[in-house]
Amino acid sequence: MPSRLRTRPPIALLTDFGYRDHYAGVMRGVIAKIAPAARIIDITHGVPPQSIMAGALALRESWRYFPAGTIFVVVVDPGVGTARTPIAIETRAGAIFVGPDNGVLWLAASAAKIRSVVKLTSARYRLPAVSNTFHGRDIFAPAGAHLWRGIRLKDLGPRITTVEQLDLGVPTRNTRALEGRIVYVDGFGNLVSNIDRGSVARLNASFPARGLWVTIKRSAPMKILDAYADAPKGAPLATFGSFDLLEVAVRDGDAARRFKAGVGSPVIVAARPG
Amino acid sequence: MPSRLRTRPPIALLTDFGYRDHYAGVMRGVIAKIAPAARIIDITHGVPPQSIMAGALALRESWRYFPAGTIFVVVVDPGVGTARTPIAIETRAGAIFVGPDNGVLWLAASAAKIRSVVKLTSARYRLPAVSNTFHGRDIFAPAGAHLWRGIRLKDLGPRITTVEQLDLGVPTRNTRALEGRIVYVDGFGNLVSNIDRGSVARLNASFPARGLWVTIKRSAPMKILDAYADAPKGAPLATFGSFDLLEVAVRDGDAARRFKAGVGSPVIVAARPG
Amino acid sequence: MPSRLRTRPPIALLTDFGYRDHYAGVMRGVIAKIAPAARIIDITHGVPPQSIMAGALALRESWRYFPAGTIFVVVVDPGVGTARTPIAIETRAGAIFVGPDNGVLWLAASAAKIRSVVKLTSARYRLPAVSNTFHGRDIFAPAGAHLWRGIRLKDLGPRITTVEQLDLGVPTRNTRALEGRIVYVDGFGNLVSNIDRGSVARLNASFPARGLWVTIKRSAPMKILDAYADAPKGAPLATFGSFDLLEVAVRDGDAARRFKAGVGSPVIVAARPG
Repeated sequence: MPSRLRTRPPIALLTDFGYRDHYAGVMRGVIAKIAPAARIIDITHGVPPQSIMAGALALRESWRYFPAGTIFVVVVDPGVGTARTPIAIETRAGAIFVGPDNGVLWLAASAAKIRSVVKLTSARYRLPAVSNTFHGRDIFAPAGAHLWRGIRLKDLGPRITTVEQLDLGVPTRNTRALEGRIVYVDGFGNLVSNIDRGSVARLNASFPARGLWVTIKRSAPMKILDAYADAPKGAPLATFGSFDLLEVAVRDGDAARRFKAGVGSPVIVAARPG
Repeated sequence: MPSRLRTRPPIALLTDFGYRDHYAGVMRGVIAKIAPAARIIDITHGVPPQSIMAGALALRESWRYFPAGTIFVVVVDPGVGTARTPIAIETRAGAIFVGPDNGVLWLAASAAKIRSVVKLTSARYRLPAVSNTFHGRDIFAPAGAHLWRGIRLKDLGPRITTVEQLDLGVPTRNTRALEGRIVYVDGFGNLVSNIDRGSVARLNASFPARGLWVTIKRSAPMKILDAYADAPKGAPLATFGSFDLLEVAVRDGDAARRFKAGVGSPVIVAARPG
Repeated sequence: MPSRLRTRPPIALLTDFGYRDHYAGVMRGVIAKIAPAARIIDITHGVPPQSIMAGALALRESWRYFPAGTIFVVVVDPGVGTARTPIAIETRAGAIFVGPDNGVLWLAASAAKIRSVVKLTSARYRLPAVSNTFHGRDIFAPAGAHLWRGIRLKDLGPRITTVEQLDLGVPTRNTRALEGRIVYVDGFGNLVSNIDRGSVARLNASFPARGLWVTIKRSAPMKILDAYADAPKGAPLATFGSFDLLEVAVRDGDAARRFKAGVGSPVIVAARPG
């Protein structure tokens, strides 16, 4: 029935295919051919090439904002053509995740509470010829499109019981400080760390009325502000940004460039000297 | 009714979120969740970061080409999280503009003739939690989606009577010449100035039969041609491009790089020596 | 009838307009205005500026994966505003191609078997004002949208009988080796040559049990592997990638940067010394 079809959840795409080539476009074509009425929404195709962590974080930050039942097709796949397993995951939250089993699905799927996982082995739901270099086209897009059409997860292949995990790393804590590291750099040059609000709040509670300082590399100590624009133009700051993780930014500027920092750079949150 | 719904005007997105991150994708997800049948069309997410002028010009050049009633959600928002006001504007031309009140909506909205403006204050039409860093997700996308669903402008918040303006600057004229400046550099490196056809025509009329020369920085004088391809390959030229403003280009090349010019660079149109 | 309309083939866009500007967005707006129910799918807008060969290859690699009857609107158009002809092509395979007659449509259209070609001259199916710089907006998008609405090819203008061709060049063969050249560099830095599987198989058959070596510029000889990931991390390799042409890649790396190679660079496939 038309009106029900139109409001069915979309298929969302997240890849590192970039915007120069036709690769993401071909995935859209494959989906449109198998599931002509499915709506396709791009999350991004700009994940840094082969960066499983960046893809995993982008997915973790996105999936909740999509309609329940959205099918996420995720391709950040440095192991394409090897033994790494293509999988699909159903979750209690309703979201379905399709992609390589290399950790890229983990942060989102575990947050959505995994119910069932299958290996994408059924030849029926792949393209007739499967290349060794482009499983986004040959395996993942078809799986997403067939799921949208209503096949059941188990039609795609046998159930498996473990999924490759990935973690952000836990900040280390000593008496006066927390040390974390940068896990994501966004297009504005904002440096997102793995330091969560809770850890910062606990540190702060141990040093009442002192306040905290954030440093990255050899930066001067920065305060934790509520918004980018609470700093003067061009000034560095720390804030809990949209990831709800501590990030280092420069008001109207590029913190990654300013501090020559990137994924892996250490970030320190310390109590101010009392 | 399905067929009417399907042909309702789209929601058009214009941001400086870039293509690396999930930010634009999350806005699409938010819209799809609130207004599942709304069609989303991207104008671009490649506005140079924080460039209000570039965003304003891209919107000015785009809105007329969209279906009447299109809802434009525009996020170029260096002041996110501060006192700058989120607004929505209804126009006599039918277009609706949603975004921060920092001038980015002005060139388009004033061309479309502003009828009514409101502040986006109603908590009902925002996401439940509003961050200080991502109002595209938390305020602007929800407002656009709810408008699409049929709420009235005044449901979003109280009416206001002034809107932040922005202007391209007026070229200065002396007896023999016009001086303007570059206001937009496109992805091909074409340099778009604030010099309009009328000013050039008036200058030309004052020096009949002499013809005009255009110079930028230390360029050799360039003729005003009808099309890029009227110049030899690799040669610089001036033309009235798709903005209907005088632009400096290089046939099959990049004028911004050739002339080391950018936003703010002066451009001179002068009568040829007689 | 709604349900039939919804599953009608899409309009697919392929341009070199990039992602910085509103140009591709304006084309989407023009289509939405003329054909509000048409679904628009982007192949890419990241074709390197003015690169007819890159656009032609991206289209050749994409069209088969789209629903039969898809209307491809392709704008890589260094000659915009000159005498080069805007055309539309109907094919036996069902695909319809719209774009400038400069070779960009050739590889795909000839593979799809050309049935009929027309010049886009009818003012009725252009925008009312046609610029000299933006035929994507003024001519090509409107033609695609009107075709989607059901006008016949011949309504767009007079039939023509020749189309601008383009070819990838044929690898040269001597007794022990094949020499081809790079014709496409993708966003991962993979270097795609014009050397096809058949030529390599014939060379291989002439030197049974020796095996083949691939070199580019001063690279060490590389083996032809089945998948990128069959090489150790950071190692160069040759493979038949998704274009089904021999490509040079670096496992989890960027071959274009590693070998300082690009379009036109020679690639040699030679029998190993026996």
